[in-house]
Amino acid sequence: MEDDFAQWYTDVVKQAELVDYGTVRGTMIIKPYGFAIWENIRDELDRQFKETGHSNVYFPLFIPESMLQKEKDHIEGFAPEVAWVTHGGEEELSEPICVRPTSEVLFGDYYAKNVHSYRDLPKLYNQWSNVVRWEKTTRPFLRSLEFLWQEGHTAHATREDAEAETSQMLDIYTELCENYLAFPVVRGKKTESEKFAGANYTLTIESLMHDGKALQSGTSHYLGTGFAEAFDIRFLDENSEEQPVHQTSWGMSTRIMGALIMVHGDNRGLKIPPRIAPTQVMIVPAAQHKPGVLDKAYDLRDQLQQLVRVDIDSSDKQPGWKFNEYEMQGIPVRLEIGPKDIEKEQVVLVRRDTGDKEFVPLAELESRLPALLEDVQQNLYDQALNHLQETTTTAVNMDEFKQALETSPGFIKAMWCGDEACEDKIKDDTSATSRCIPFEQEAISDTCICCGREAKEMVYWAKAY
Amino acid sequence: MEDDFAQWYTDVVKQAELVDYGTVRGTMIIKPYGFAIWENIRDELDRQFKETGHSNVYFPLFIPESMLQKEKDHIEGFAPEVAWVTHGGEEELSEPICVRPTSEVLFGDYYAKNVHSYRDLPKLYNQWSNVVRWEKTTRPFLRSLEFLWQEGHTAHATREDAEAETSQMLDIYTELCENYLAFPVVRGKKTESEKFAGANYTLTIESLMHDGKALQSGTSHYLGTGFAEAFDIRFLDENSEEQPVHQTSWGMSTRIMGALIMVHGDNRGLKIPPRIAPTQVMIVPAAQHKPGVLDKAYDLRDQLQQLVRVDIDSSDKQPGWKFNEYEMQGIPVRLEIGPKDIEKEQVVLVRRDTGDKEFVPLAELESRLPALLEDVQQNLYDQALNHLQETTTTAVNMDEFKQALETSPGFIKAMWCGDEACEDKIKDDTSATSRCIPFEQEAISDTCICCGREAKEMVYWAKAY
Repeated sequence: MEDDFAQWYTDVVKQAELVDYGTVRGTMIIKPYGFAIWENIRDELDRQFKETGHSNVYFPLFIPESMLQKEKDHIEGFAPEVAWVTHGGEEELSEPICVRPTSEVLFGDYYAKNVHSYRDLPKLYNQWSNVVRWEKTTRPFLRSLEFLWQEGHTAHATREDAEAETSQMLDIYTELCENYLAFPVVRGKKTESEKFAGANYTLTIESLMHDGKALQSGTSHYLGTGFAEAFDIRFLDENSEEQPVHQTSWGMSTRIMGALIMVHGDNRGLKIPPRIAPTQVMIVPAAQHKPGVLDKAYDLRDQLQQLVRVDIDSSDKQPGWKFNEYEMQGIPVRLEIGPKDIEKEQVVLVRRDTGDKEFVPLAELESRLPALLEDVQQNLYDQALNHLQETTTTAVNMDEFKQALETSPGFIKAMWCGDEACEDKIKDDTSATSRCIPFEQEAISDTCICCGREAKEMVYWAKAY
Repeated sequence: MEDDFAQWYTDVVKQAELVDYGTVRGTMIIKPYGFAIWENIRDELDRQFKETGHSNVYFPLFIPESMLQKEKDHIEGFAPEVAWVTHGGEEELSEPICVRPTSEVLFGDYYAKNVHSYRDLPKLYNQWSNVVRWEKTTRPFLRSLEFLWQEGHTAHATREDAEAETSQMLDIYTELCENYLAFPVVRGKKTESEKFAGANYTLTIESLMHDGKALQSGTSHYLGTGFAEAFDIRFLDENSEEQPVHQTSWGMSTRIMGALIMVHGDNRGLKIPPRIAPTQVMIVPAAQHKPGVLDKAYDLRDQLQQLVRVDIDSSDKQPGWKFNEYEMQGIPVRLEIGPKDIEKEQVVLVRRDTGDKEFVPLAELESRLPALLEDVQQNLYDQALNHLQETTTTAVNMDEFKQALETSPGFIKAMWCGDEACEDKIKDDTSATSRCIPFEQEAISDTCICCGREAKEMVYWAKAY
């Protein structure tokens, strides 16, 4: 892991049975274990979307080329990575059809036809779908030709409502990362050059991987009235005056699986936070051929089932093999039980995060296990927070900036004049990019780290996935 | 509805806000209400799949042309309706890529690489996905260019196991239709000419629409070893001998939404069975401007929320408008409450299925409401069963057959010699097709209804969607 993080990543996603390569270059097969984790992430987000009044819908995979052209910035941003359908059955199509890279134009077209009065607003739609982006270099979860995501698309009567929605969805993404995936994020606004193609501005959460690189983990865009102008989405307000709608879009994708792996993983494999783990406790019987052991192990499974997500491996593989396997899969707690334990009316609990082992009397198991899982969850978060804090440095000149990248890869906080030229130069010189203009600003110095002119704002910089 | 069923269908799916047309011909937008119903169907099926040991996975949208070619019958069946991606970004692809019409070949390729020993079996995979079939004539839900479905793909060590799986999945589809969607189905085997392209045989459930046409509602295929031969999926059995796997695949799609609409609907709109209804009870306050009415209505909503899926419409629209709207949407029960009801400590319950109205004392509401919903569920099933039974006729010659189609459209039970030529002739002459060879056979006569030769089996025939 320390020697070759990229290779470690590729090995772990394969060996932990998360994913496999599809036959078409850059596509992926999400295997049962990987999909079960994604389902837990999806269900938690979906719950929060519904709680905040959003409805799920399903819009088509296909977009006519002419429709994609309607919003100028949007098509410029996405055209280079679109997959085109040109033939249906045996016939050539009169107009090429785009496989959706994102669905703003489809929702724009729909809202234009379905929003007439302020009474029709807001429209709070979300969909869970696959999208295709024709990327040149790909890696499972992180960058793939096709990926799964949710895309929210909303329309509002006022700028205030739309901006509140944009913030609210960033809060939900933050909550998911912090409370479920167990890692902290830096919250802020993307610079103009890094914002979504077609947005007024983009809010982002950025997380930090074990190797010190950042990963954009969720974005929420205030689209302003750009799509409303392009698609003519207008409504009569309470004074019967015609107004354009204000829109947002926001998305989180299977890319977040990459963050989960790269924030918490170690040389033994994954560490899945308990709140998102498909299996929280794996029972591994010891000396299971001895009379009574398997019976007791299954009884325990049945007993604990109401309390935690528990599974049992009673296959005839060696316990050592099983230990390695479930450590690789990052199952938070292993429960061992053998003849001696039965005699002593106890079990052995082993935490994946620290490797700590404890003997727990059977009578205390039902109270200890949930508490232990909470400990693991909290410890994973604390470790990720520590790592982020330890590797976040400040720089007031380019020498410090480069030094920091070298000695302590992570986020660098540095001042910026607001000029795209400086952003480009920093990227060319160091391959670090602006990750966000954080909501929590600090006055690190008065001058831009790149050009020395007056600084406008503090930016988080990092090398990124 | 009686005059023009096709028009009624199109009107209802639009007016009940289930679906809208996409911009690319033949695609559909599933709107919030339509998607909420689909989510309930999906969740119930998913629960049953998991209970029977299946894992969800996600396989790519894209299939290389050369891979689709591998199983001869399969490609012949699907090639005419495939959408082809020929360009990625600005480049022309060296090999055209197929947008999946179904995923047997992708799973076949995967199993070939991942199944080595009898210990690796069975593989019980399912995915929820979108698929594309380039259909010439389309209708929302019933036949669309793109639709949502689940596709199960399993691999087994023996023929017996695979055939048991094929039957089990048909049972699950049957259970969904009968116990949740509230309609009966005819269960049986497809004829050779109607089976899935690449299958040994196809099991099917067939349901009957209000207009007497049948709809194939779910299919489960025993694939035998055909894909195993084509993709070289072999394993070492317990005696270390190499064997091909036996496979199955099975699917249910958003097409089932069409059945739900066309079995139960009437001239006022939809009737959604309570067990699948996103909203089971809609509260409509009467004279809601009068003091205390809205408070009481919201209290009721809060009270009933733990018990049933309840919503309230307190908008300033006329109660009459609301009644029509929720009848159109097929919400099973309407709850009315106004000043007089509050005085008498009662509410009014109106069933969507019969229109029956009852006054229920507030003290009895919590016991009455669930019972009423069960009554509605049962009555919808009974009506559908009645309709199926009343319109299922027998015929021993073609005159009777044609007469039956004319006077009482529905299923016709008639004997068949097993020759595809007779099947074709019946279709050409009457436009009725063989729906299935039912598991429950009857000896209606000794001779084939078409050619008069010796009959081999009884077949259900009908005009179909």
